[in-house]
Amino acid sequence: MPAKKLSQKHSIDLNKLSWNDFHALPLTDKSAFFKKDPRVFDCLFAGQFDKDILNDLFKLADKIRTKAQTKRGLDKLQQLLSHKRACLYFAQPSTRTFLSFQNACHILGIKTSDIRSTAASSEAKGESLEDTIRTMHSYVDLIIIRHSNPYIAEKAAWIINQTERPIPIINAGSGPQEHPTQALLDVYTIKRAFGRVNDKKIAMIGDLKRGRTIRSLTYLLNNYKNIHINYISTDSFKIPDDLVEFLDKSNISYSQSDNIESIKDADIVYLTRIQDEYDVNNESKLVDHSNYWLKKEHLKLLKKDSIILHPLPRRNELPEEIDDDPRALYWQQERNGMWIRTALLAYIFKVDKAI
Amino acid sequence: MPAKKLSQKHSIDLNKLSWNDFHALPLTDKSAFFKKDPRVFDCLFAGQFDKDILNDLFKLADKIRTKAQTKRGLDKLQQLLSHKRACLYFAQPSTRTFLSFQNACHILGIKTSDIRSTAASSEAKGESLEDTIRTMHSYVDLIIIRHSNPYIAEKAAWIINQTERPIPIINAGSGPQEHPTQALLDVYTIKRAFGRVNDKKIAMIGDLKRGRTIRSLTYLLNNYKNIHINYISTDSFKIPDDLVEFLDKSNISYSQSDNIESIKDADIVYLTRIQDEYDVNNESKLVDHSNYWLKKEHLKLLKKDSIILHPLPRRNELPEEIDDDPRALYWQQERNGMWIRTALLAYIFKVDKAI
Amino acid sequence: MPAKKLSQKHSIDLNKLSWNDFHALPLTDKSAFFKKDPRVFDCLFAGQFDKDILNDLFKLADKIRTKAQTKRGLDKLQQLLSHKRACLYFAQPSTRTFLSFQNACHILGIKTSDIRSTAASSEAKGESLEDTIRTMHSYVDLIIIRHSNPYIAEKAAWIINQTERPIPIINAGSGPQEHPTQALLDVYTIKRAFGRVNDKKIAMIGDLKRGRTIRSLTYLLNNYKNIHINYISTDSFKIPDDLVEFLDKSNISYSQSDNIESIKDADIVYLTRIQDEYDVNNESKLVDHSNYWLKKEHLKLLKKDSIILHPLPRRNELPEEIDDDPRALYWQQERNGMWIRTALLAYIFKVDKAI
Repeated sequence: MPAKKLSQKHSIDLNKLSWNDFHALPLTDKSAFFKKDPRVFDCLFAGQFDKDILNDLFKLADKIRTKAQTKRGLDKLQQLLSHKRACLYFAQPSTRTFLSFQNACHILGIKTSDIRSTAASSEAKGESLEDTIRTMHSYVDLIIIRHSNPYIAEKAAWIINQTERPIPIINAGSGPQEHPTQALLDVYTIKRAFGRVNDKKIAMIGDLKRGRTIRSLTYLLNNYKNIHINYISTDSFKIPDDLVEFLDKSNISYSQSDNIESIKDADIVYLTRIQDEYDVNNESKLVDHSNYWLKKEHLKLLKKDSIILHPLPRRNELPEEIDDDPRALYWQQERNGMWIRTALLAYIFKVDKAI
Repeated sequence: MPAKKLSQKHSIDLNKLSWNDFHALPLTDKSAFFKKDPRVFDCLFAGQFDKDILNDLFKLADKIRTKAQTKRGLDKLQQLLSHKRACLYFAQPSTRTFLSFQNACHILGIKTSDIRSTAASSEAKGESLEDTIRTMHSYVDLIIIRHSNPYIAEKAAWIINQTERPIPIINAGSGPQEHPTQALLDVYTIKRAFGRVNDKKIAMIGDLKRGRTIRSLTYLLNNYKNIHINYISTDSFKIPDDLVEFLDKSNISYSQSDNIESIKDADIVYLTRIQDEYDVNNESKLVDHSNYWLKKEHLKLLKKDSIILHPLPRRNELPEEIDDDPRALYWQQERNGMWIRTALLAYIFKVDKAI
Repeated sequence: MPAKKLSQKHSIDLNKLSWNDFHALPLTDKSAFFKKDPRVFDCLFAGQFDKDILNDLFKLADKIRTKAQTKRGLDKLQQLLSHKRACLYFAQPSTRTFLSFQNACHILGIKTSDIRSTAASSEAKGESLEDTIRTMHSYVDLIIIRHSNPYIAEKAAWIINQTERPIPIINAGSGPQEHPTQALLDVYTIKRAFGRVNDKKIAMIGDLKRGRTIRSLTYLLNNYKNIHINYISTDSFKIPDDLVEFLDKSNISYSQSDNIESIKDADIVYLTRIQDEYDVNNESKLVDHSNYWLKKEHLKLLKKDSIILHPLPRRNELPEEIDDDPRALYWQQERNGMWIRTALLAYIFKVDKAI
C-alpha cells in the first residue's frame, strides 16, 4: 500500500490519482492498492479473492471452528488479536452481518465499538461521510462498513490508505453493489456441503437486479471450473447489464429463465428476497413475485443431494415449512458467516499461522 | 432437553407438539423442557424456581459480591465464562435491566452484543421475530430477551431447544406477563434485609393489573411459608383474574384493599408505577392515582423495621423525599439485580462450584 | 470526598448544602468536593486542572502511546483496569467523543456499557435524569456523560458522591457550557506541536458564544504564562459575558476582532463550527458566516510554524482542501483525544504509576 511499493509494480501511481479517476479504474488495475505485504488488506470486492486465498480462508475457518469447541481453544483465539480495536459502522439496518462480524471480532479478542445509527453520530451535526470515516480511523485498527452508499467502503479505503496509519476497511454491504463477505460464506457453505465447488450448477432466484449478494457470489464463483448459473427471475428483476457483461467474459456458463421449475437441474438453489429498500417508484409492488417463491410442492422437483441457500432475511419467497427439509442449509450458512469472517480477520491481521 | 430424556419422564413428547399446543400446557407439564442436566436452563417464568434453587442463587450472589470487592477476585470471575458470548435483545426501552444484565455478563467475562432497536435490525426488512431469534442463536451462547410480545421468550426457547445447538434463553421482561429475574432480585433483597422470607407481610401497590413484576414476585413468594400479600390499588388496576386464580390455589394468604393506609401492617411495601405503555384507550389517564402514591406522611404509619421496595423506574408514586428514609431500600434492590443476575448466569452455565 | 475530610478544610460542609446552593458556589469553593485522596476524581470543569496535573497527564499520555505500539504493551495496559466497568451515557449525538472515550476504556481493559439514545432508556418511561444516573451508578465504576443539560454532569457528581459508593463522573460535553476533556486534548496537541504552551498567541474563530470548547480551552490556558487569545467572530457570536468577566480577572491577555485576517499573528488558529443545535429562533441562519471560514487564500497569511486546530466535526468553516497543508493538525488532535482520555482514566483510577 505504501506508494513506493505500488510504483514499483505500476506504471501509474495510484496515490496521485483523484478519487474519481481512481474509482473509475477496473479492479484489476487497482487491486494492488488494497493489498499489503502482499495480502488482501482491504476487503471491498468479491473480485479481490482468488482460489488460493479462498482455499486458505476455508481451511482457516474450519480450524477456527474446531478450536472454538473448547474453552481452552477459545481463550487462545481471544489472545491473538487482544490488542486490536474495531469500529463497526452500520448505517443500514442489519442483524446478522452486524452480529456475525461483532462476534467474529470477539472470538479473536478484538474490542469493538459501533455506530449503528446516523442519528446518534456526528453526521447529525452535518459531518461528511469522509470525515466520519477518518474519525473512526483515529481510534481503531479496523473499520467494518455497511452503508447504502455503494462507493463509501472503497472511498474509505482510498482515504485511509493515504494516511500515515493505514488500517484495513471491510465492506459489509455497499448499497446494491457488493457484499463480498456474504459471497465468502456462500461459497464456504457450498464447499462444506459438497467437498468442492467445481462442476456445480447454481440456480439464483429472486431480485437479481438489486441483490448485492447475487453480484458478489457470481464474481467469486468465477474462480471455479465448470460452473453453470441459472438466473431465475421475473423480467423486471433480471441481472443487470454489468453482470451480463462480466458473465460474457467469464469462465462461467449461464442461462436466464423466468420459470422457477428450472431449479430441477440445480445442485444449489440460492434464493433472495425482493430488495424493496431500493425502490424508487414502488416498482416491487407492481409485479407479482409469487411465481418465484419456493413452495413445498417444488421440493419434489429438487435433486436429492442438492442444497437450498438464502442470504437471509427471508420473506415469503422461502416459507418456514421448508426449514425441515434436509436440503435446507440456510441456518448453517448463516453460522458459517461468523466462522469465515473470523478467518478473514485472522488472515488480514496475519495471525492465521498461529491458529 | 434432548427429546430422549424428556420422553423417559413424560408421557407426551414435548418436542412433537405444535407451538400452540406446547404453549397451552401448564408450566408444571413443560418445565422439564426448559431444564438441562437437570438444572434450569432457560429462565422464562418465576414458577421455574423452587426454594432450593433460590437458596443456591442467593448464596451464590453473596459469594460473587464478596469476590468482586478485589481486582484479583474480579479478574478470576471474568475468567469463568470468558469463552461465552451473549446477545441482549431489548425491543422495549430499558436502562436498568439492560445495564444490569450486560454488567453481569461482563463480571463473568461473557462478551456481549446487543440489538436495542428493531429499527436497526432486520425486523426493519420484514424478518419475523422467530427468524431474528434464530439469527442471534447462530452467533452466541446465550440470548437475553425483553419484548412487548408476552410469548416470544418462551417461543424462542421452544425454537432454540429444538435446534442442534440449544442455548439458554433468559426472559428479561415479556410484555405485561412476566419478569422472573426482577422477582429474583426482589426476593433476594427481602432475604438480605430480614435474613429470611418466611412469615412476611407484603403490601403491593399501584398498577397490579399490568405490572409484570407483581405476577412474577407473587409466584416466587409461593415458595415461602406464612406469606401474606395485601394488594392495594384502585379498582381499575386490581390484580388480574389469572393471578387471583393462582392465589386461591397457592400457599399464600392474601387480601385486596383500596386504601394505602393498610400498608401499616406490612414488613415490605412494594410500590409499582402505572404501566401506561400498555394503555389501549388512555385508561391510565381516566383515574386519579394520587391516593396510591407513598407520601412522606405515610412514613410514620410504617413499621420501624419494614422496608420499601420498587422495581423502578418510578414516577410520582414514590417521591424523592422518601429516599432518605432508612427503610428505603430500592437503590440497594437495584444493585442486587446485577448480583443475582450474575449468579443466575453462573448457575445456568454451571460455573457456580468454581466461585 | 467523604464529608469528614472536607469539613476539616472547609468552613462549610458541602454535603449539607442543597443542590441549588451547592451549584451556585464558585468552583474554587467546591472543587474539593470533586477530589479524592486528593486527586481530581470527578472531571467536570476545565478549571479543575492546574499546571501540575496537566503536565502529569501529558507525560502519561506520551507514555501510553509508546506502550500502545506493541501487543505486549497493549496487553499490559488492558490488565490495569480489567476489573472496572464504565457506562457511557451520551444523550447528544457524538461520534468522536464517544468513540475516543470507549476506546480509551478498551485500552485500559475497562468494560463498557452505553446508553446513546434516551428513546431506548427508561427516560422514555418518565424516569428523571437523576434517577437514570443513579441507576447507571448501581452497576458500574465510572460514568461518562454527554448531555444537552448543562448542569447534569455536575449534579450527577453531587448525587453520586453522597452515596455509599462514590464513583467518578466525567463530563464529556455539557450543553453549551463545558467540554473539559476537549480542552485537555487541545492543550495536549499544542504542547506536542511546540514543546510548550507558554508564550503562545491563539486565534479562536467561529461560534464563540455557544462553543463549549471555547470556554473550556480558555479556562485551561489560564494555567500558562504570556498567553494571548484573539477571539474572532461576527458580532452575534462573540464570547459570552461570563467569559469576558473571567478573562478580565485572568492572566490571559486577549482581544476581540471581527476580521479573520487577524489570524496572521497567531501561533494557533482554532476554528469552531456554528452550534446551531442551540438555536432558539434560527439565529444561525440570520447571519452570513462565510467571512469566518478559513479559505485557502488565508493560508499564505498564516505564520509558517503555526498550527491549525478544530475540535471537529467541521462544516464549511474548514474546507477539505486545507487538509494537505502541513500546519493542519486537526486529525492528529483528534487522535490525541484518545490518548489524553486514556491518561485521564488511568490518573483517576490511580494506575498512572504502573504505566
